[in-house]
Amino acid sequence: MRSLLDVIAFRYWLISLVVLFVKMYANSVVQALTRFRSRAFAWPEDARLVKGGEVVARDPELIERASRCWRNDLENIPIYLFLGLGYVLCGGTPWWAALYFTIFTVARVAHTLFYLRGLQPHRNIAYQVGVLVCFALAIHIVILLLTIQPI
Amino acid sequence: MRSLLDVIAFRYWLISLVVLFVKMYANSVVQALTRFRSRAFAWPEDARLVKGGEVVARDPELIERASRCWRNDLENIPIYLFLGLGYVLCGGTPWWAALYFTIFTVARVAHTLFYLRGLQPHRNIAYQVGVLVCFALAIHIVILLLTIQPI
Amino acid sequence: MRSLLDVIAFRYWLISLVVLFVKMYANSVVQALTRFRSRAFAWPEDARLVKGGEVVARDPELIERASRCWRNDLENIPIYLFLGLGYVLCGGTPWWAALYFTIFTVARVAHTLFYLRGLQPHRNIAYQVGVLVCFALAIHIVILLLTIQPI
Repeated sequence: MRSLLDVIAFRYWLISLVVLFVKMYANSVVQALTRFRSRAFAWPEDARLVKGGEVVARDPELIERASRCWRNDLENIPIYLFLGLGYVLCGGTPWWAALYFTIFTVARVAHTLFYLRGLQPHRNIAYQVGVLVCFALAIHIVILLLTIQPI
Repeated sequence: MRSLLDVIAFRYWLISLVVLFVKMYANSVVQALTRFRSRAFAWPEDARLVKGGEVVARDPELIERASRCWRNDLENIPIYLFLGLGYVLCGGTPWWAALYFTIFTVARVAHTLFYLRGLQPHRNIAYQVGVLVCFALAIHIVILLLTIQPI
Repeated sequence: MRSLLDVIAFRYWLISLVVLFVKMYANSVVQALTRFRSRAFAWPEDARLVKGGEVVARDPELIERASRCWRNDLENIPIYLFLGLGYVLCGGTPWWAALYFTIFTVARVAHTLFYLRGLQPHRNIAYQVGVLVCFALAIHIVILLLTIQPI
């Protein structure tokens, strides 16, 4: 084995990984920009970086939103990436991989947009779609485990 | 390489992954159910989803427990999944893999139950067992790195 | 496929994984030691473990720092490990892998030291270096995806 790039499902996983990485980083940028614009920091050494910066106990709403959105990402995206990679390494079908990975990635991008704008029940639906994809992947992995015998 | 399903240690890793995923999701369900029962939400758009819902600054205890338990999971489970997958891809022995992955998975399921019920020192012991397995995996990986020379 | 240990880039990824794991655990030890020294706990069952322990609403500063540092690690290290493993499985060059993984690992260790000591702008520079490596890995993966055609 030198490269998995001829495994089509692995290529889809890589695309999903890169998109989700950029999405998460965009969330950090929202957080940082809001922090610098509002001059509200968690630590004195941070506040000193900006003219008029001050330390606050409770973050402004958009920072708090971006922070909770990040937290929700952390609870969902790494486990999805493991389930997705697990499915790929099981020799999963490219067609299914494309379906799962596309739906999850779109759902999580939508989730972030809905969270930052405070749109419900849209945010909740996007979250549930992501969870459903993870369950589908988990069930698919179990089916492969049960039906394919080791040599 | 088309499938790792004939690598027995990989099968054990997949089982551990699926069990831990279900466990983490169960924790989210506890959080969501408690939130809807107590009608205490973090955001106005969430509170509007339920009759009599209101925005609170501090979550009810069970939600706070589930949240801190999630946080502890996030600090432990992804790194374990990486160490476990790393061990598997090193060509780790199925017998050791079964031992490591079973102990870790059982310890983390126990950790969640103990955390939600507030049982100490049980929770702490379960946590330490999980950390010990991660250290064992890390040491085992280093040993394989040192003893097996690349071709 | 029985072992990836003859893939040099994979060996570098494993070393980076083990170092980052030990670093994150060291952070937990700082948190736990400070907690026991200050006797400030989040839960009554924890406070009862230590003579004179009490439950506090807001953690002492060093615990809060270690906690926020952990949180920042969680937002950066797992996604890096995925990007790094993705790059390795693409058949990435050992030389580039060594460069990326060394810079990221050193930057994150430095980030933790700077965070705990409250040093700015050092902490921010270390953080930005880590993010830059992740972007470099993501771009490199996209280039490999576009230039290497599946068989």
